[in-house]
Amino acid sequence: MATYARPVERLITELSKLPSIGPRSAQRIAFHVIRGKKDDAIGLAEALKEVKERIKPCVRCFNLTEAEECEICRDARRDRTAICVVEDPYDIGPIERTAEYRGLYHVLGGSLSPLDGVEPEDLRIAELVERVRKEETKELVVATNPNTTGEATALFIAAEVKDLPVRVTALASGLPVGGDLEYADEVTLGRAFAGRREL
Amino acid sequence: MATYARPVERLITELSKLPSIGPRSAQRIAFHVIRGKKDDAIGLAEALKEVKERIKPCVRCFNLTEAEECEICRDARRDRTAICVVEDPYDIGPIERTAEYRGLYHVLGGSLSPLDGVEPEDLRIAELVERVRKEETKELVVATNPNTTGEATALFIAAEVKDLPVRVTALASGLPVGGDLEYADEVTLGRAFAGRREL
Repeated sequence: MATYARPVERLITELSKLPSIGPRSAQRIAFHVIRGKKDDAIGLAEALKEVKERIKPCVRCFNLTEAEECEICRDARRDRTAICVVEDPYDIGPIERTAEYRGLYHVLGGSLSPLDGVEPEDLRIAELVERVRKEETKELVVATNPNTTGEATALFIAAEVKDLPVRVTALASGLPVGGDLEYADEVTLGRAFAGRREL
Repeated sequence: MATYARPVERLITELSKLPSIGPRSAQRIAFHVIRGKKDDAIGLAEALKEVKERIKPCVRCFNLTEAEECEICRDARRDRTAICVVEDPYDIGPIERTAEYRGLYHVLGGSLSPLDGVEPEDLRIAELVERVRKEETKELVVATNPNTTGEATALFIAAEVKDLPVRVTALASGLPVGGDLEYADEVTLGRAFAGRREL
């Protein structure tokens, strides 16, 4: 039995596919959209389309961008001798907000997890080693998540570049172990950056 | 400083406008969309547009519909001698799921709240009285929310139709007072329907 008109049911179904949105929240949001201004709904619809049509990985660091290279890679004021290695593009935002780091980034696209079938060749590790070699990087700050797979990935990367003239550091512990870098507060993350240790 | 590419920031901004979605959730959802299938994002975008373009209030009961009259009003198997009065269209779903009620509905569009400037003429109360008169309604089940404004609205409606040959009932208490009808579980709501009392 369809309780609501078909377009309403369809919107609830589509919203339920989003992460951490259950059927009740989906219904709430759908009715909010129906009650709300048409421009707001259209604005969200256009933003969804635009992001899928225009966003792609940066050719250098794999951060998300509209252009060939991302804003950070194109920024002449950044310290080009340092690369901070993160698992996902959304780890960059929290690090930028600490204002502790002014180098470049490298997005791996996840962490090593053989049990889930994520092997070194599934991440952008070869691309990273290539960059360190070519760009004559002086410091590699490995900022993978402070959990098992993140730490395994950090050690793997350190081993991969051990013959290159690059200092490899990791964020200081201080980050709660088992947590998610994305949720760390600016102060904790800033301190972890300031106290980064040799790997 | 824009941390993310402009289309990503735009999507996060648009998502943050939705109810119960904070900046962190908006970011999570945005990255989920970016990582996810293009068809899913387009599906949601289309559903948002469709709902704004095609959904309007039923001419009879003000439930949401694509047609002139909503599915419930058009359903010949419904008991046309009963009208259940609800505040919002999304109160109909939970009631339908109890399967305790087979009559029609009437959506008021809110509840009386003079402090917030919601007066009787802002709700579809005149339209309700007109329906009761014209459709020769035998029972009016007032299912406004079990809180101050909902109960005031119920009493106001009972007074408005007191000279008409219609039985006016309200949902049994059993619903947690101060709560929101939308969140009641089916069993509680079903019992409240079964034990409805004279108003």
